[in-house]
Amino acid sequence: MPHLHLEYTANLTQLDTDKALLRLNHALVASGQFGAEFDIKSRALKVESFRVGTGLNERGFVAVRLALLSGRSSQIKQQLSESLLAVVQDLGPWPEGVQVQLSVELLDIDRDSYSKVAIG
Amino acid sequence: MPHLHLEYTANLTQLDTDKALLRLNHALVASGQFGAEFDIKSRALKVESFRVGTGLNERGFVAVRLALLSGRSSQIKQQLSESLLAVVQDLGPWPEGVQVQLSVELLDIDRDSYSKVAIG
Amino acid sequence: MPHLHLEYTANLTQLDTDKALLRLNHALVASGQFGAEFDIKSRALKVESFRVGTGLNERGFVAVRLALLSGRSSQIKQQLSESLLAVVQDLGPWPEGVQVQLSVELLDIDRDSYSKVAIG
Repeated sequence: MPHLHLEYTANLTQLDTDKALLRLNHALVASGQFGAEFDIKSRALKVESFRVGTGLNERGFVAVRLALLSGRSSQIKQQLSESLLAVVQDLGPWPEGVQVQLSVELLDIDRDSYSKVAIG
Repeated sequence: MPHLHLEYTANLTQLDTDKALLRLNHALVASGQFGAEFDIKSRALKVESFRVGTGLNERGFVAVRLALLSGRSSQIKQQLSESLLAVVQDLGPWPEGVQVQLSVELLDIDRDSYSKVAIG
Repeated sequence: MPHLHLEYTANLTQLDTDKALLRLNHALVASGQFGAEFDIKSRALKVESFRVGTGLNERGFVAVRLALLSGRSSQIKQQLSESLLAVVQDLGPWPEGVQVQLSVELLDIDRDSYSKVAIG
């Protein structure tokens, strides 16, 4: 833990996912909430098939989900969410004529049933 | 919010994901549970590598997950789930000789730590 | 239910996902926690864009998430998690020079709002 997922719609063609993931990971390290930088596992997924709402104008989104072990306070989680959203906002510019929504959600993962091992 | 994910196995070759997502979004708008149609962010993902159970006959699935902000009643969530399943059931016909499972799950997302911004 | 997701980074080129999913499903059947083998729906997703931490050495991960209906005890969930991790550990060998992290998380899904139907 933590695990971070970044989804982005395929019409956000200028998004640099390598840069995005590195900056997000640096923000998580800087939060001081995680013991080792090595524990932060992040991935980006391009969404080719999507629909925002029911309107006809062009739309897109970047959706970040951070899954972390249960037990942190609501205040800590709000701060983490806001710091990640600030990183995402700074990833622009966004395409002209596309309504883009950026979001960050936090998901608690049950601590007792989380298992892991490191190799090498 | 809400965020909808539709996963479908690659052997369901006739599934029209554009139609599926539009119908699912219309069902969510019609539920009256969401303030603006614009907020509904849906995506479809084809699953190329999958295994249903341990049997040898051909199988597939469509799995919908709706993530929405916490606070709605159990009754409301049941109604949402059933209305989405009805949409998915209506997406057939399904391939001959394939055992297909359709499912809808709802996932509460912590309201306090959800952050978003809209651009453009 | 249950739904299993296996994500693996693209640098783990020797991972046999067909074998992995079949073994994971057999472990779930053997747990005795699920009524029918048919109910177990598993998929593997290769992660092409990823970043582990902030360091420069080569890293990768296999991340398994098992979503199951709420109501099982903490002890049962720990046992499930450990049995799945044992399967994943046995999927090696892993590439030389890559630090690989293997993890299993369990996610409760709200029982009341889960809907499904089987066709064929």
